[in-house]
Amino acid sequence: METVSTNRSHGGEQGVYRHRSTATGTEMTFSVFVPDHAAGAKLPVLWYLSGLTCTHANVTEKGEYRAACAEHGIVFIAPDTSPRGPQVPDVEAWDFGQGAGFYVDATQEPWSANYRMRSYVEGELPDLIAGIFPVDLERQGITGHSMGGHGALTISLRNPGRFRSTSAFAPIVSPLACPWGEKALGGYLGPDRSAWQEYDACALVEGGARLPDLLIDQGSADTFVSEQLKTELLREACDRAGQPATIRLQAGYDHSYYFISTFMAEHVEWHAERLKA
Amino acid sequence: METVSTNRSHGGEQGVYRHRSTATGTEMTFSVFVPDHAAGAKLPVLWYLSGLTCTHANVTEKGEYRAACAEHGIVFIAPDTSPRGPQVPDVEAWDFGQGAGFYVDATQEPWSANYRMRSYVEGELPDLIAGIFPVDLERQGITGHSMGGHGALTISLRNPGRFRSTSAFAPIVSPLACPWGEKALGGYLGPDRSAWQEYDACALVEGGARLPDLLIDQGSADTFVSEQLKTELLREACDRAGQPATIRLQAGYDHSYYFISTFMAEHVEWHAERLKA
Repeated sequence: METVSTNRSHGGEQGVYRHRSTATGTEMTFSVFVPDHAAGAKLPVLWYLSGLTCTHANVTEKGEYRAACAEHGIVFIAPDTSPRGPQVPDVEAWDFGQGAGFYVDATQEPWSANYRMRSYVEGELPDLIAGIFPVDLERQGITGHSMGGHGALTISLRNPGRFRSTSAFAPIVSPLACPWGEKALGGYLGPDRSAWQEYDACALVEGGARLPDLLIDQGSADTFVSEQLKTELLREACDRAGQPATIRLQAGYDHSYYFISTFMAEHVEWHAERLKA
Repeated sequence: METVSTNRSHGGEQGVYRHRSTATGTEMTFSVFVPDHAAGAKLPVLWYLSGLTCTHANVTEKGEYRAACAEHGIVFIAPDTSPRGPQVPDVEAWDFGQGAGFYVDATQEPWSANYRMRSYVEGELPDLIAGIFPVDLERQGITGHSMGGHGALTISLRNPGRFRSTSAFAPIVSPLACPWGEKALGGYLGPDRSAWQEYDACALVEGGARLPDLLIDQGSADTFVSEQLKTELLREACDRAGQPATIRLQAGYDHSYYFISTFMAEHVEWHAERLKA
């Protein structure tokens, strides 16, 4: 692993790192914030999965998480959203291909060689992190934005017990039921929609997956809510299944980091209560 | 004035605006954060002047000021750092010309037609703001970073009584005594160094200008400190003159927004105490 940059911030260290991924067959970049801590301490971890078009850099620069993570003693990790590079298959669109990995393991050519973000985020990156940073992987939380909210919800629902806390900002709650999801899962996984189920938070909840609770914030002025995000589908699925969920509609907020940064400190605190309980 | 964008954030509104400036003869862009407030209220203002290469956008995206400004009820205004556009004289360098206005009124050709950031920031923009936003210009504070710290200090020192509070992050404290300053003031004002005095915080303090107090944070790992910023010159000038100043060396911090964002909330609180006293 190579260190791209480190900057002292909020009493801790914000780093950006690069490594060769076996899951994706590419160089992958990610960021880690480690707050000030006692020598030898192992800190709880909050994973943040980013949305379409983003890299690690968007939340690292605009997410406003460091003050809260420093206060609560939480390591914050932000992976990239897809494999990247001139040798990685891509299309012109911003909602498929590079920048749009959807946290799946692709099964269709030409995507299956590199687009394995599920294996990367669920397996390879935690293993790498555990050996290098002062983290306690018995105390992990996960969150994300939009496509990354979809990633956070589905990864947590598929791995019961692994994350003590799960939240999301404006998540895509059902790729089976929106154009972004149809395009991405159809492309990466092929036309058999039964293969999409494990990548759909609503379908996972309906199929019996359970988490202790969920926190979701959704802006009322988010232009993607009615066609793509469809928060109500998750609310209905949770209600039907008896899955506890706090789903808040935040009046006037849009889909941007101006929204995310507003509620980031509350999410970090919510995770901290569960990670440090 | 044209609205470029508005986003709800931290309970208020982050806006970006554009207008035709008579001072610079160009379109100028700036950002304003207005926190939630009672109808008809006029709020105190904190001006933030940015550093070399920056626009309004750097602090607007990375400055982490909105939570603190919302808490304290302060309007935060971030102007651009120079006139811009294909018709505006420029050079290849990043430390002179576009992005590097140094908050002076240039007297030398070809710069004098557009590079009038002193008049813009001291006069035109406050006049524009006063007529549009819910601000109380009897309660103004000013801060800035690097070249913008120089701008904040010199504008406040030249206008006693105008700002109730003045602070800076890693300011250039003496353009007369550093390469950035020599290049910029020599270019914009010509070789007569007596004309530079009013754009040099140390010279202004030595010449008798006084403020109630000052707050300055400087990172110890800032690679510009010894050659360009020279914090110690201001400390010495303040000590000699009896100018109260809190000048803090922050261990391990560099020149980036990772540094600025760490101490932004403390600066906003420090200004708030003085603006709301």
